[in-house]
Amino acid sequence: MSTSASPVVKVGIVGGTGYTGVELLRLLSQHPNVELTAITSRGDAGTRVADMFPNLRGHLDLVFTTPADAPLKECDVVFFATPHGVAMSQANELLAADVKIIDLAADFRLQDTAMFERWYKMSHACPDVLAESVYGLPEINREAIRKARVVGNPGCYPTTVILGLSPLLGPDPMIDVTDIISDSKSGATGAGRKAEVGLLFSEVSDSFKAYGVSGHRHHPEIVSQLEGLTGASVGLTFVPHLVPMVRGMMSTIYVRLTEKGLETDVQALFEAHYRDSPFVDVMPAGAQPDTRSVRASNMLRIALHRPPGTVDRLVILAVQDNLVKGASGQAVQNMNLMFGLPEEAGLSQIAILP
Amino acid sequence: MSTSASPVVKVGIVGGTGYTGVELLRLLSQHPNVELTAITSRGDAGTRVADMFPNLRGHLDLVFTTPADAPLKECDVVFFATPHGVAMSQANELLAADVKIIDLAADFRLQDTAMFERWYKMSHACPDVLAESVYGLPEINREAIRKARVVGNPGCYPTTVILGLSPLLGPDPMIDVTDIISDSKSGATGAGRKAEVGLLFSEVSDSFKAYGVSGHRHHPEIVSQLEGLTGASVGLTFVPHLVPMVRGMMSTIYVRLTEKGLETDVQALFEAHYRDSPFVDVMPAGAQPDTRSVRASNMLRIALHRPPGTVDRLVILAVQDNLVKGASGQAVQNMNLMFGLPEEAGLSQIAILP
Amino acid sequence: MSTSASPVVKVGIVGGTGYTGVELLRLLSQHPNVELTAITSRGDAGTRVADMFPNLRGHLDLVFTTPADAPLKECDVVFFATPHGVAMSQANELLAADVKIIDLAADFRLQDTAMFERWYKMSHACPDVLAESVYGLPEINREAIRKARVVGNPGCYPTTVILGLSPLLGPDPMIDVTDIISDSKSGATGAGRKAEVGLLFSEVSDSFKAYGVSGHRHHPEIVSQLEGLTGASVGLTFVPHLVPMVRGMMSTIYVRLTEKGLETDVQALFEAHYRDSPFVDVMPAGAQPDTRSVRASNMLRIALHRPPGTVDRLVILAVQDNLVKGASGQAVQNMNLMFGLPEEAGLSQIAILP
Amino acid sequence: MSTSASPVVKVGIVGGTGYTGVELLRLLSQHPNVELTAITSRGDAGTRVADMFPNLRGHLDLVFTTPADAPLKECDVVFFATPHGVAMSQANELLAADVKIIDLAADFRLQDTAMFERWYKMSHACPDVLAESVYGLPEINREAIRKARVVGNPGCYPTTVILGLSPLLGPDPMIDVTDIISDSKSGATGAGRKAEVGLLFSEVSDSFKAYGVSGHRHHPEIVSQLEGLTGASVGLTFVPHLVPMVRGMMSTIYVRLTEKGLETDVQALFEAHYRDSPFVDVMPAGAQPDTRSVRASNMLRIALHRPPGTVDRLVILAVQDNLVKGASGQAVQNMNLMFGLPEEAGLSQIAILP
Repeated sequence: MSTSASPVVKVGIVGGTGYTGVELLRLLSQHPNVELTAITSRGDAGTRVADMFPNLRGHLDLVFTTPADAPLKECDVVFFATPHGVAMSQANELLAADVKIIDLAADFRLQDTAMFERWYKMSHACPDVLAESVYGLPEINREAIRKARVVGNPGCYPTTVILGLSPLLGPDPMIDVTDIISDSKSGATGAGRKAEVGLLFSEVSDSFKAYGVSGHRHHPEIVSQLEGLTGASVGLTFVPHLVPMVRGMMSTIYVRLTEKGLETDVQALFEAHYRDSPFVDVMPAGAQPDTRSVRASNMLRIALHRPPGTVDRLVILAVQDNLVKGASGQAVQNMNLMFGLPEEAGLSQIAILP
Repeated sequence: MSTSASPVVKVGIVGGTGYTGVELLRLLSQHPNVELTAITSRGDAGTRVADMFPNLRGHLDLVFTTPADAPLKECDVVFFATPHGVAMSQANELLAADVKIIDLAADFRLQDTAMFERWYKMSHACPDVLAESVYGLPEINREAIRKARVVGNPGCYPTTVILGLSPLLGPDPMIDVTDIISDSKSGATGAGRKAEVGLLFSEVSDSFKAYGVSGHRHHPEIVSQLEGLTGASVGLTFVPHLVPMVRGMMSTIYVRLTEKGLETDVQALFEAHYRDSPFVDVMPAGAQPDTRSVRASNMLRIALHRPPGTVDRLVILAVQDNLVKGASGQAVQNMNLMFGLPEEAGLSQIAILP
Repeated sequence: MSTSASPVVKVGIVGGTGYTGVELLRLLSQHPNVELTAITSRGDAGTRVADMFPNLRGHLDLVFTTPADAPLKECDVVFFATPHGVAMSQANELLAADVKIIDLAADFRLQDTAMFERWYKMSHACPDVLAESVYGLPEINREAIRKARVVGNPGCYPTTVILGLSPLLGPDPMIDVTDIISDSKSGATGAGRKAEVGLLFSEVSDSFKAYGVSGHRHHPEIVSQLEGLTGASVGLTFVPHLVPMVRGMMSTIYVRLTEKGLETDVQALFEAHYRDSPFVDVMPAGAQPDTRSVRASNMLRIALHRPPGTVDRLVILAVQDNLVKGASGQAVQNMNLMFGLPEEAGLSQIAILP
Repeated sequence: MSTSASPVVKVGIVGGTGYTGVELLRLLSQHPNVELTAITSRGDAGTRVADMFPNLRGHLDLVFTTPADAPLKECDVVFFATPHGVAMSQANELLAADVKIIDLAADFRLQDTAMFERWYKMSHACPDVLAESVYGLPEINREAIRKARVVGNPGCYPTTVILGLSPLLGPDPMIDVTDIISDSKSGATGAGRKAEVGLLFSEVSDSFKAYGVSGHRHHPEIVSQLEGLTGASVGLTFVPHLVPMVRGMMSTIYVRLTEKGLETDVQALFEAHYRDSPFVDVMPAGAQPDTRSVRASNMLRIALHRPPGTVDRLVILAVQDNLVKGASGQAVQNMNLMFGLPEEAGLSQIAILP
């Protein structure tokens, strides 16, 4: 997994039995600079990882351990692929041992403690750590992430919406930020590996629905980041939907261009904005990306449209694999930045199509 | 198929080998007042219908005939489940023989000849018939349909969008009609039974995408009907998407309430508006209908939402089975009205869930 | 739901929240001779049935009640759509009140008490009732079912295997009964509506696997019925598989013809055998039925093949909808027989294709 | 794509627009020892490859050329991902230019010319090349492949059946070779990227069926290889089925153990047999592999079962990704052997799960 000439990062994973966990394992097992040191699971301690996830047979020889038995403090970085609330309970102890933290849950996504507590119904265990933590979206926070000790890995939906809008924002935005709509769609892995009737194959397959219309936790996360980018109050309507597919996420974003936006070549703007971002692909004008074009890869693809019917409407299509760029791949991208590795290290796989 | 006490309608179907064709066959074979008299298919004349569609084995004993051999003029009504352009070429001859016409293609959907010719790239063969034809959406045109000789059965997407908005329109509309968005999603049968690479299982499955963003033929159809209902110019952004499922369609419609709309109980308005429409189900406020709740039934379900983020945004969710209420079921509903039968005749099947 | 001229059967359902429960509700709500009187659910008492299963909105106005509150003793028949072990615990009380019983679980499938206890790991609560109960496969037990007070509705797999083999059996069988293979495949509803990780959309979709290879509870059920039909010891290899589809079941059955079988026109034999069975369709020789041709219908289709490669091999393909002919539809068919109704009453829906 | 220290193989692909073509492109673009030199497509010459297959955007900068314009003779090896009959028409010319050939179609799979002509309904263009060609299944022909100039890449089904049986064969086989059954199942990509109604999403999804029961072209290919391994006449019943999934293939193989087989530890036999084969994974006894455990990887997993019901029955479960180990991955594995590269070069990706 590592070569002698390259720096090696010792990695621990807390909570390796969910979908973001197994995806981290897939990516990190193939990463040239990583040594997987510990994987914990309270419920499955003692089980060989490859017995639970047979795709890893022959590639990974680790056994799940209890958190107590895991040598987490000997790691350089620990990923938390756990429910909300776990990372913040262990953050101070790990930081004290000089271990960096990347949390794939929401503990470090909302830098406003009050907002966190309102949406996640729990008090925050370490507001000071929250204050220093960095929102781990490399395309908007690359330099801060390089220096961060604690990174809050973004939610899957926010990644598509924020990256789909980012080039249009700024102090003098190209769009009316008070009236943004994101009609977002996710494959079923977005809901996690939980034993719930509503997620059964027989419930999800061959059907389509909206959910969380009256309020989804990613709403304040998106708004907060957009407001940071534009410095003004943002009005967002966000409606997520469940697609009968395993992986894949698409946001269809509807905005109205301002005078300035109407005068701008927004296609050129996007291309310039993301020129140095290896994982954002601005497609040619008029393209209609499908989610399978990014399946199992860390790429997010964007296409811009000016549909008929209104004069100032811009429609932005953004697709990603919710488990990769929307979760575990982005976490590895953050790790690469935090440890001075090439941003693409271990993340250059081509998407699986068909 | 028919009982002696009930009136019997003799039915012909032109073009019975597509998905709307086989769905018409399923519905009409079980309809208590219908005698299926002729089914044509240029390419498959001589084939037993039940050999092509084995679900009909034991229920239907007809053979496809060529259009020339079919006793269409002896029918009371002929359904056209054909490509655009076929119905208009035969309309005058059938009408002269006192045969009514229901066209499931677009020949009689756009009552404006010029608009038809611009969007469908063909000249209209019978503008006079087009002028007398009725747009076959019973919930807005019930009385006109009862008297019609020629009905243009609506497109699948337009059915969801028009019925989702209809109660809000009128001369003093509840919404800003210049800024309507419909983010619509369809199962793959919406694209028909055509041998195209883009519709293969291996292309569509486990993926999601938008299409037709730069202009879809249902756009002028929707706008034209909405403008008819409100008497004003309508601005519509319409983005259709392809869902990896067989049947089912959902439109997520975004509108801004006017002052009047904000003061109105829109939930009560919808419930009152559709009280006497047996195939529109206004769900309780906050419901999130899934498409499987209407699978293989003629029901369209609507739910209203006031999501957080903006003060005047209303989101309307509308689901239907694109092959039933979105096509063949609606055609049968129109037939029922045209022949004085109960509107529900042959259409009361419960949706298949799961 | 019922017409005054027809006999009306008062029906209760115990355990109406699983897939066989909602399918019973769909079929019985549309049955011309049924009055649905009570539906119980321990966990969801108080919930309107149509709130849990919105396909029933407008068709069914019942509320789940606790078993204790349900007027089950006033019913003519009670269906048990419950886990194994529930029906047998209530059988004596209902029979004493002159209520007939149809159990969709396994309590009355294995007429041998010892075999039941070995495979289901529980002692049988009423061996005397088990002794009088009838195995509810109408095509082999029609007359006994007409007179039965208690019917054990067959398992889904056994229905396909037994009906696929039945015409070949008898005292001088057409096949070597010591060497039968059934390679069977089921959609995910076959596993029930249970919150289990292994049944999640993200686990089942776009994958395929065998399960229960080392022993499945339907194995003794099939063997016991086949032995009853042939009067000899049967050797069966049974391997079930999980298909990423909602409904549908197929058994590919491999047998070797005996001398007698080789001299017999087995196609004609099957056609004659099932001539009077409205729900078994023997397809023309060489047909390759797909499961969607029976989706949501009570039909089971069979096709026979003599593939190349060996001289005496016969392959039998049998498809059904596991929730209808494999469960709830068959239960209604049994009810029809038990109450002197036409065997097809309420079961003549055409399959949904596509 | 290549590093200076490693040998570089110049590769051409004829027919790069099907599913095996795009999968070759995915694998070869990431192969450390490959320089992709030419990709031809008669129909799509001039199109950028990444415009047709957007997963390749940023990874591959080639344009499809006509076969005439492609510098195929400058390549070290040419892959044919074409319909049957194309490779044999160009073989002599390429061999004369010292270019090796790997054909993914059937031109070099049946070393018996007469058998080829009977099953593929065309005469063979180069029987002499056919005579020297090697059947490209590394696990049974590794040494011959190393020296081959022309390799016939195996069919997808044959790969599973032959590798599933190979350890049991030999001059004194462990099984009754006159009575082998393979009940095989394939995802839809197995049928190729062809515009056919029967392969549409709306036809394949949520359904299951057998096909080719009366004779499939892989039948003689399997029999011929098995007979080569055992030196005796083989009786095979082979029934393929279509699974509603994109990738993945499973064969459930039923055999009867001989006396010798009953006395042998077949689990240990398989483990020893494949110890040095990096792409065959013999799972622990009793395992039930699912196809997703090998999705997008070159691994084939095997599990052995002794199910109840008969004394001598052995059931072998074999899964692979039909596009990788069943086609393009195996072709790359063959190339590695032919050019002295490590067998695993470019093929060590972990399967995508979920």
